[in-house]
Amino acid sequence: MTFARRHDPAARGFASDNHAGVHPEVLRAIALANEGHQPAYGDDVYTEAMGEAFRAHFGAGAQVWPVFNGTGANVVGLRAMCAPWEAVICAESAHVNTDEGGAPEVTGGLKLLTVPTPDGRLTPDLIDRRAIGFGDPHRAQPRVVSISNATELGTIYTPEETRAICEHAHGLGLAVHLDGARLANAAAALDVPLAALSTDAGVDVLSFGGTKSGLLYGEAVVVLDPGAARGVEYVRKTAMQLASKSRFVAAQFEALLGGDLWLRNARRANAMAARLGRAVADVPGVRVTRPVEANVVFAVLPPAASARLSKRFPFYVWDEPAGEVRWMCAFDTTEDDVDAFAAAVAEEMGGTG
Amino acid sequence: MTFARRHDPAARGFASDNHAGVHPEVLRAIALANEGHQPAYGDDVYTEAMGEAFRAHFGAGAQVWPVFNGTGANVVGLRAMCAPWEAVICAESAHVNTDEGGAPEVTGGLKLLTVPTPDGRLTPDLIDRRAIGFGDPHRAQPRVVSISNATELGTIYTPEETRAICEHAHGLGLAVHLDGARLANAAAALDVPLAALSTDAGVDVLSFGGTKSGLLYGEAVVVLDPGAARGVEYVRKTAMQLASKSRFVAAQFEALLGGDLWLRNARRANAMAARLGRAVADVPGVRVTRPVEANVVFAVLPPAASARLSKRFPFYVWDEPAGEVRWMCAFDTTEDDVDAFAAAVAEEMGGTG
Amino acid sequence: MTFARRHDPAARGFASDNHAGVHPEVLRAIALANEGHQPAYGDDVYTEAMGEAFRAHFGAGAQVWPVFNGTGANVVGLRAMCAPWEAVICAESAHVNTDEGGAPEVTGGLKLLTVPTPDGRLTPDLIDRRAIGFGDPHRAQPRVVSISNATELGTIYTPEETRAICEHAHGLGLAVHLDGARLANAAAALDVPLAALSTDAGVDVLSFGGTKSGLLYGEAVVVLDPGAARGVEYVRKTAMQLASKSRFVAAQFEALLGGDLWLRNARRANAMAARLGRAVADVPGVRVTRPVEANVVFAVLPPAASARLSKRFPFYVWDEPAGEVRWMCAFDTTEDDVDAFAAAVAEEMGGTG
Amino acid sequence: MTFARRHDPAARGFASDNHAGVHPEVLRAIALANEGHQPAYGDDVYTEAMGEAFRAHFGAGAQVWPVFNGTGANVVGLRAMCAPWEAVICAESAHVNTDEGGAPEVTGGLKLLTVPTPDGRLTPDLIDRRAIGFGDPHRAQPRVVSISNATELGTIYTPEETRAICEHAHGLGLAVHLDGARLANAAAALDVPLAALSTDAGVDVLSFGGTKSGLLYGEAVVVLDPGAARGVEYVRKTAMQLASKSRFVAAQFEALLGGDLWLRNARRANAMAARLGRAVADVPGVRVTRPVEANVVFAVLPPAASARLSKRFPFYVWDEPAGEVRWMCAFDTTEDDVDAFAAAVAEEMGGTG
Repeated sequence: MTFARRHDPAARGFASDNHAGVHPEVLRAIALANEGHQPAYGDDVYTEAMGEAFRAHFGAGAQVWPVFNGTGANVVGLRAMCAPWEAVICAESAHVNTDEGGAPEVTGGLKLLTVPTPDGRLTPDLIDRRAIGFGDPHRAQPRVVSISNATELGTIYTPEETRAICEHAHGLGLAVHLDGARLANAAAALDVPLAALSTDAGVDVLSFGGTKSGLLYGEAVVVLDPGAARGVEYVRKTAMQLASKSRFVAAQFEALLGGDLWLRNARRANAMAARLGRAVADVPGVRVTRPVEANVVFAVLPPAASARLSKRFPFYVWDEPAGEVRWMCAFDTTEDDVDAFAAAVAEEMGGTG
Repeated sequence: MTFARRHDPAARGFASDNHAGVHPEVLRAIALANEGHQPAYGDDVYTEAMGEAFRAHFGAGAQVWPVFNGTGANVVGLRAMCAPWEAVICAESAHVNTDEGGAPEVTGGLKLLTVPTPDGRLTPDLIDRRAIGFGDPHRAQPRVVSISNATELGTIYTPEETRAICEHAHGLGLAVHLDGARLANAAAALDVPLAALSTDAGVDVLSFGGTKSGLLYGEAVVVLDPGAARGVEYVRKTAMQLASKSRFVAAQFEALLGGDLWLRNARRANAMAARLGRAVADVPGVRVTRPVEANVVFAVLPPAASARLSKRFPFYVWDEPAGEVRWMCAFDTTEDDVDAFAAAVAEEMGGTG
Repeated sequence: MTFARRHDPAARGFASDNHAGVHPEVLRAIALANEGHQPAYGDDVYTEAMGEAFRAHFGAGAQVWPVFNGTGANVVGLRAMCAPWEAVICAESAHVNTDEGGAPEVTGGLKLLTVPTPDGRLTPDLIDRRAIGFGDPHRAQPRVVSISNATELGTIYTPEETRAICEHAHGLGLAVHLDGARLANAAAALDVPLAALSTDAGVDVLSFGGTKSGLLYGEAVVVLDPGAARGVEYVRKTAMQLASKSRFVAAQFEALLGGDLWLRNARRANAMAARLGRAVADVPGVRVTRPVEANVVFAVLPPAASARLSKRFPFYVWDEPAGEVRWMCAFDTTEDDVDAFAAAVAEEMGGTG
Repeated sequence: MTFARRHDPAARGFASDNHAGVHPEVLRAIALANEGHQPAYGDDVYTEAMGEAFRAHFGAGAQVWPVFNGTGANVVGLRAMCAPWEAVICAESAHVNTDEGGAPEVTGGLKLLTVPTPDGRLTPDLIDRRAIGFGDPHRAQPRVVSISNATELGTIYTPEETRAICEHAHGLGLAVHLDGARLANAAAALDVPLAALSTDAGVDVLSFGGTKSGLLYGEAVVVLDPGAARGVEYVRKTAMQLASKSRFVAAQFEALLGGDLWLRNARRANAMAARLGRAVADVPGVRVTRPVEANVVFAVLPPAASARLSKRFPFYVWDEPAGEVRWMCAFDTTEDDVDAFAAAVAEEMGGTG
């Protein structure tokens, strides 16, 4: 029997950047890393080279631990930063709070001290609302501030905002964790190096996203301050996030970060979102609800139009009662994709008139 | 910058079947499943087809949940089988006990009731030694018997032995879990279908191994008795074992199980181990310590010879005080590999004379 | 050496109802249950009688599990109600969220889905804000609504309000947990039986408080709907909440619930809070901030006066920035205590003028 | 309604030292500590005095944390000694392994590395069998050696044996935990101070038993080396082991340790076991199976005789297939109790002739 393609490779949508596939350069790296035997569990030449590729971006002191997925990266990083009784301050809308099935609590035993935010972003003032009860055993002890950049709402922290949060957190004796599943998009949008939003701003530990940037699979826990995390190698293993054939995760990351693939992919996804945002802004009845800063457009449109549209191009309803939808662009979204989708939006809105 | 191969693809060793790379047919399946957009998290056509491929082997009632790695498969399966206060009877030498960093306990909160075995295999009598304390809250409540086939010691359960364990366990009100990281090797060695060692023998839930059979990554939790596991989809997510780009795990498994690739790979690995076992059996000073039933040879040889040999071909020392080593064959081990290694064994043993 | 009293038994304060000691009738019950041997771990005649005493209040179907403390009662009850991936909707101000050091998450692996409330009380509308994501593995699955009566803010749910919440929750497929650390105070305040706020209103599982009602130690997990909790005896043991000399917890509860001691104690504490609320209401500069419904008064007064006052009578500052303090009455608070305290409030406020 | 005694205070048995009640001096201390208000959660004068009473026995550096029960003491101590990925070496027969319902694993997430022992006691050689895999993330990292003195089998470690274990463990980089639920019995049997079996021998952290020595309830986590445990106050709270009315646990311990009550009680229990051991040694058909070193006698007798006897005096069958029973003496066991029981043994054995 021969394995056969089962899907239409021309199919596109705006549902998520992980509905896209694998960038060809990444697939080629996997093929090159293949054949012959290599030590498993990270003792191979590719995992070593992957570390160097990360250090070229994040500084010579960065320790890099490849893992399988974003939830794994977040839980491993946070768990390694916290003693069992310590807690994590984060936005109520943070991925760790809303989208990981409760993994931080269920599997990590981590209490999240969530705080509502206007746009997905924490501020020193918002942090202060949860940074209380130090030394009181009746209170989960705040230990980490976790931010996402870009956020789940597509907003972005600048280097200055990141630094302000880090300084504030450090002043309170807290460490800073960055969920960087879309850090590449944030850096590309601001046209700054990855370190400007992490190492140079004072971030202690981050999750760096690969899957949404065109990898087959793979994320990384990056420890920038070795004093901020303990036993990452053991936490990763007990969290079931240690890949046996580590060379292949590593080769993918080297392909992504060794050159400018990460930046090309992020720029493309961001540019397509910007194009889409502009294209629908003028469609009567469509309201773009949030600033388009990274690779996503949020908009409100009538439910009936939304329903018709989503049959033509898959996407998610973000807030059902509000009629808000999320349109996300990926590294492989094309101008034609965007133009066809924007035209469909206009058509369906016309149909509701 | 162009990604470049960093290793010698001709390098071979006998350290582990996960030191091997990816079978070309598997890589081709990944490439065919690539391009275009597909729903993430398992709602795609490949994950559906993967389920069918498993059901062709394990029966129409099998539910299949792809995960990232073997530790993940075991912990997800066992966690879904047990209430929080329930425990797992297993061999002291079981992978879940010795080789997963404590993940079942640390992450799963599962108590393992371990029992010493002569050869890695449980028996009804050995199970009875731990199947005690039912209804007594001072005792972790036995709920699952977990066996591995092939075992960590390279031994194999026959269909009859598996059935005897399942009947005994069921009679005690226990369910049976099978760690099938090398189930293909066991089935190939016995020349029986996969179902003969699982579905037909009464196994309730199994971990089916892909990585050691030539996949890039990917294992599966297979539920044969739906009454024996609860909430697998939620357990998998909170255990951080849900892949976003699920289509690629699925395509690999379809390539493995849709035809006879699983069998070809397992037969090759087993045959190479048998060849190696025969080749070294006559080398003076080398003693093969266990029956060569699957794809691994255990042997005792002098430490000095062992040390010299392992510089030429990587392998692991299994039991340092006893001088016992483990030589494992993979799907890509060749007759030339074996013959070269056996010759090296003879040379180094000559050198110790 | 002879053990000697180390404290002034005339010392009083308004810090907490657990700063009070043990009611004499409770001590006498302990003494009567003493001497001779009795089975441990609950297989004794007192634990059986305790169950009967509870069933006289909560109905013939109530199952009763004595535990050590309130955090233990809440975590055991909630853990027995939820599968590992299921979550608990509660007020942001709930004791389980703010005052248990993170025990539900850290020890129980329970995700709390918290929602801000105006006065510590949930409503069907507030529940709906968190009762989302059913069937979506990316979301912790809502399973339980947990309310406190009286709440941490001294507010009370009526039987009708409790029933409305239970009906709403049940309609959503959720079970209802009641943190009844101060259920006696709520029932006394409303002059209704304990069942009116629990069994008859549709509550499924509750924590019933003993320590704050005059016991030495001891709370109880009371299961009203046996289908709503699984394996309580095992959860209790693994949560380290099973007392060996169970007869003494049981005797205390029998003393509390077998007659009207629970009601006398609760009425006294409530009446003293009401008296205090009235007495300070007219002191210029003091503002009672919340309705005095149970045994606690919240008030705002100038920080300097607050600081002076707390040196004379211990109490807690509830909300530092707001200058809000909490004055709590206990089963042993006397009219003289209240009058002396109210006079001190007036004096210290005069001092700030 | 008046609370009434429900049991026969003359009833005795040999089932467990926690079937006994409360020593009168302990009850008196509770009464003296009663009345008036005292700070909760350990900020009271009795908890402070309790610390001093412990330090008089265990040295000026001892930190003392009262908890509710023995399982709680063990789990809190071990959890505070181990990072989440670290493991505990203990005897297969240890209470933490066999008698706590799996609490260390289920609630503590602790892996126990158990080793069979001839008599319940570890030795340096036995420790070495599990002290392996340091630095290997595939292995739970050994961190603590936990011994019990007296053991569950009634055997005792001498000061020299304890020191040998501590030195060996420390040499391996491991810390030593002592389950001292019956440490008083061991010290009384050897006629040495408590420190001789703990502080002076190099033990790092211990559980000190109160309940089995005549308390109503209460055990203590005693940290002898502050470097060996982290965050005990937070671990205790999240483990639900922090009593609100802490003054009463403390007063009991002060009554026990402030004078010689602990020693009188332990000597009595030990002497009664010795008397019983001697009395039954000569009964034909009864075989005392283990040395009677503390307060327990193990014996083998015919099942029919055992069954008849246990209807007259409650006790536990320890090993059903072997016909081995456990007869335990308590602080309140009298010479008359022992003589009556020994006579009953002789009678029932005659009856089997």
